[in-house]
Amino acid sequence: MCQLLGMNCATPTDITFSFTGFAARGGHTDHHADGFGVAFFESKACRVFIDNQPSCKSPVAELIKRYPIKSRNVIAHIRKATQGTTALENCHPFMRELWGRHWIFAHNGDLLDYQPALSGQYQAVGTTDSEAAFCHIMQGLRQRFGNTEPSTADLFQAVEELTHEITVHGVFNYLLSNGRSLFAHCSTHLHYIVREWPFNKAHLIDADMTVDFSLTNRQGDCVSIIATKPLTDNEVWTRFEPGQLIMFEQGYAALRAVVPIPGSVQRKNAESLACV
Amino acid sequence: MCQLLGMNCATPTDITFSFTGFAARGGHTDHHADGFGVAFFESKACRVFIDNQPSCKSPVAELIKRYPIKSRNVIAHIRKATQGTTALENCHPFMRELWGRHWIFAHNGDLLDYQPALSGQYQAVGTTDSEAAFCHIMQGLRQRFGNTEPSTADLFQAVEELTHEITVHGVFNYLLSNGRSLFAHCSTHLHYIVREWPFNKAHLIDADMTVDFSLTNRQGDCVSIIATKPLTDNEVWTRFEPGQLIMFEQGYAALRAVVPIPGSVQRKNAESLACV
Repeated sequence: MCQLLGMNCATPTDITFSFTGFAARGGHTDHHADGFGVAFFESKACRVFIDNQPSCKSPVAELIKRYPIKSRNVIAHIRKATQGTTALENCHPFMRELWGRHWIFAHNGDLLDYQPALSGQYQAVGTTDSEAAFCHIMQGLRQRFGNTEPSTADLFQAVEELTHEITVHGVFNYLLSNGRSLFAHCSTHLHYIVREWPFNKAHLIDADMTVDFSLTNRQGDCVSIIATKPLTDNEVWTRFEPGQLIMFEQGYAALRAVVPIPGSVQRKNAESLACV
Repeated sequence: MCQLLGMNCATPTDITFSFTGFAARGGHTDHHADGFGVAFFESKACRVFIDNQPSCKSPVAELIKRYPIKSRNVIAHIRKATQGTTALENCHPFMRELWGRHWIFAHNGDLLDYQPALSGQYQAVGTTDSEAAFCHIMQGLRQRFGNTEPSTADLFQAVEELTHEITVHGVFNYLLSNGRSLFAHCSTHLHYIVREWPFNKAHLIDADMTVDFSLTNRQGDCVSIIATKPLTDNEVWTRFEPGQLIMFEQGYAALRAVVPIPGSVQRKNAESLACV
């Protein structure tokens, strides 16, 4: 399987600290060594850095750790391949355009017998179930709303419905963002933490590094970090319920829903816990 | 204006040498310092690195110079902004998906009174005439061929027709690739060179660097380099004719056409020569 890392903020923030701990899990403190990727929204722009080298030693990951890119929405992924080869076209996150915005998607899980009926508006470039699911979501949004960007509430409901269509096929932990909102869905494992005023110190689990966020952040700053497993050992992380979908905006959990998980998939999910 | 660099090869090749000379023009040997970008196709995958710092000193450009990515199709761009701000969403090259392939586009020129009728299938994220032109081409290809990828000959003809629609509006030097073919069109300034067996030494104009390609390449390797201005001072570069469109495949110029340039645009082009 894989691991996910996401960030949604009220003000542009660099993710260097969290990414350093997360990247160590790509071959150093954990075995997710079949490539990695990270996408940064900067206003409407989006930069995607991917590599099929392990994130613990990739020169691209080194750049990310040393070059603090300030972003309000970040999605990162370290891969332990289960479907598809370790070819670069199978590295998450994936990017498509809809309504004049870039959309970014990364997935942790395994969708079985999953071959969505894609009309061709969005097609997968690689061979993963994950990119097919992303195309399924993009197509579903376009079919529902045409060329008109919907309200946030309507968008959330559509994402909830599309998530339900896909969870029928298996484990579907994912992060999705259009640069304004960040959607996080949990089938099995996902945690989050909201850091806000007054900020505190945080210490990484995967590297001996501490940051005092009260020195680098101000009143009004607010940052949500979402991760497959907690990244720090001195903070209280909130575990997502199975099936829970949360939309983060301005650094907060703004909308929530629980997407029903079919019984057969709940069993599959339970079986797959050990390998996430 | 801006400058373009492209590479199309028979076998995966790294562009470190050419990129080093090209990147120096982004604020060191020339004034194209409003950001840069470079896209590498690796099989069907495509990595796009962009930065709004000048390429002569950007940490992202440093990574590209030190990390030899082997690719069969590369498109790079250094920017001197004429339309749109220096925001990151306006940095070339731009990427979209069509027929399960990534497409990459970069432009040097200026399109005046240009507002293509985009149906919404492809929309610009930024505010440049260049990204609008790319969406125009992508939409035109989808309208002509639907979800079925055409033959190379039909694709070339369609690109030629779409280029003609856009050149009506001004200077339209561009590079376009789907990872297999690289299309290069010249309104005003574009040059190319084909390097093949037996390879020779090449010396950069913009940096004191020489490479002996006979030591790093073999029989069967073939590399076309396309650039706004020649990059080396000891090789013979071929100048594109105004209006010329060439499709490169396997390192060679495979198909050629001359797209008629309207008289009014020829005058505009002539006026703009000094600032390219």
